[in-house]
Amino acid sequence: MTTKAYGTHAADKPFEPIDIERRAPGARDVQIEIAYCGVCHSDLHTARSEWGGTRYPCVPGHEIVGHVSAVGTDVKGFKVGDTVGVGCLVGSCQHCAACDEGLEQYCENGFVGTYNGATKDAPGYTLGGYSQRIVVDEKFVLHIRHPKEQLAAVAPLLCAGITTYSPLRHWNVGPGKKVGIVGIGGLGHMGIKIAHAMGAHVVAFTTSESKRQDAKDLGADEVVISKDAAQMKAHAGTFDFILDTVAASHDLDAFSSLLKRDGTLVLVGVPEHAHPSPNVANLIFKRRAIAGSLIGGLPETQEMLDFCADKGIVADIEMIRAQDIDRAYDRMVKSDVKYRFVIDNASMG
Amino acid sequence: MTTKAYGTHAADKPFEPIDIERRAPGARDVQIEIAYCGVCHSDLHTARSEWGGTRYPCVPGHEIVGHVSAVGTDVKGFKVGDTVGVGCLVGSCQHCAACDEGLEQYCENGFVGTYNGATKDAPGYTLGGYSQRIVVDEKFVLHIRHPKEQLAAVAPLLCAGITTYSPLRHWNVGPGKKVGIVGIGGLGHMGIKIAHAMGAHVVAFTTSESKRQDAKDLGADEVVISKDAAQMKAHAGTFDFILDTVAASHDLDAFSSLLKRDGTLVLVGVPEHAHPSPNVANLIFKRRAIAGSLIGGLPETQEMLDFCADKGIVADIEMIRAQDIDRAYDRMVKSDVKYRFVIDNASMG
Repeated sequence: MTTKAYGTHAADKPFEPIDIERRAPGARDVQIEIAYCGVCHSDLHTARSEWGGTRYPCVPGHEIVGHVSAVGTDVKGFKVGDTVGVGCLVGSCQHCAACDEGLEQYCENGFVGTYNGATKDAPGYTLGGYSQRIVVDEKFVLHIRHPKEQLAAVAPLLCAGITTYSPLRHWNVGPGKKVGIVGIGGLGHMGIKIAHAMGAHVVAFTTSESKRQDAKDLGADEVVISKDAAQMKAHAGTFDFILDTVAASHDLDAFSSLLKRDGTLVLVGVPEHAHPSPNVANLIFKRRAIAGSLIGGLPETQEMLDFCADKGIVADIEMIRAQDIDRAYDRMVKSDVKYRFVIDNASMG
Repeated sequence: MTTKAYGTHAADKPFEPIDIERRAPGARDVQIEIAYCGVCHSDLHTARSEWGGTRYPCVPGHEIVGHVSAVGTDVKGFKVGDTVGVGCLVGSCQHCAACDEGLEQYCENGFVGTYNGATKDAPGYTLGGYSQRIVVDEKFVLHIRHPKEQLAAVAPLLCAGITTYSPLRHWNVGPGKKVGIVGIGGLGHMGIKIAHAMGAHVVAFTTSESKRQDAKDLGADEVVISKDAAQMKAHAGTFDFILDTVAASHDLDAFSSLLKRDGTLVLVGVPEHAHPSPNVANLIFKRRAIAGSLIGGLPETQEMLDFCADKGIVADIEMIRAQDIDRAYDRMVKSDVKYRFVIDNASMG
């Protein structure tokens, strides 16, 4: 089936309308008419081949929401008309220890990314959500239970939401815990909302005084300007957990030193240039840890969507048309967005 | 009470016999005649003021074993004649959350080290086990249940033993777990013995082919030469836990990449020059952690001594006289010891 999409033909080329092919739904497939697609930093890195290995034409997008328009004969969990989502994964081996535990993001044989991943479908690699339709194995499709009018703002939950929810859950954030969220962007603004909804005492860290009120509005109990050594020192040794959403190279010791004994600093962004090497004494003298976390598995993504529906959590978004993608990328590089661009896929015409 | 000791008067001066004063035992004190004292790298760093802040004359030594010669009126756990040990700590605040949990090494008000720590006793800082007698609050004295003839070889358990036992226990090493021990020195050789006794599958990592048989004799199931990329690669993603005892600056990615999902690399040594900054993607894509761990608390140190007595575990030692301390330090710098020097304190005359 020919489907309208927006793609780019090279790292330095603008986005333009292209036609792509979607497979006819197989027995276990769900065919989805895409209503909205969030714009993630990974989209930009891939479209511009900043990580290398991008295959062109490239159609990014892995924060997908829409409605089911057809289902395969063996599909049990979805029916035509359902409101659904697709996140960063559209496939995994389904038989390794990680897949068995519902942690498909850690699939030992490599998960299939929603774009630029290996597939038997033409053209040999996956094409993402900057398109009007997608066909996905039901195992990788999520139910969305938010009110209809929130649908566009649900899209970023599929990547930014689960990337922050998963470590917050894994490290048992909840009532009585003091939790830091470093960076108030696409990921960080979701981290603040989710940690707050989990019942934790949430401290937002930002380099920019201008974001203080915004962070409070998002649910932060306190806001610390991380460039201010005195403010930082006042929190030394008091955090159970800190989620660091900043991918740019920065000083990790400033945050690890704020952890209590046995506290963990979790990184979710891969820096282009390495962070300064963390101080080992900082870890040893309080049995602290620095860990990493990657998106989330399918069961946990469904759990996150249900949690957010229950708590009334969506992303703060700025809606754009597909024609505005290049401009949105340029603004994203300057962090000029509160806090996520979402494409209205109807604009693809 | 005047007590014979070996101390040094400056960073560049040799050890020499000196007389020191020990307090008369207070109500909760245990007075110990020291039989043997292990020689730890920290002794050398302190004696030579490599970490700064050393007060002179300096009497190091925190791997102390001996016999009780007097007890205070309120002492309940010890009597004259008992075989006992003293490790790295002789005091802590006793009222913070860490002390309440028996994790005195993480005392929030700072523990009192067995040497070069703050004390009201003359000369205003603590003097360690390179001496014939010590007086210690019973809370910081351990029972030793090993056979009498093993006493000298028990001494290193008080630092090298607990520093490896504590993280192995904290991260649940045991049957069915694949565990790496990096470095086969004073700490590493204890780590191999203890992890083996805990029932884990133990892989020793060394840079030196000549240590292969030694590592097997210590209890390693496998030995990997860490400079050999092919050998390392064969173990990628297979370890539950790796204990890295090497303090010298080295590549942590070589070891973190060997961890399974959710595995932890624990560091117990503070490098003089920072390790190369660890690869963050290595952590994110398998939810791995790099953590630190410091010695152990008093309850866990007693547990470790009892475990080692039950399993027949002691250190491999080379006995020296106090007169040989400087020479032993020089050999220790060259890693020319299998695996711990222990001073026969009777040699102090």
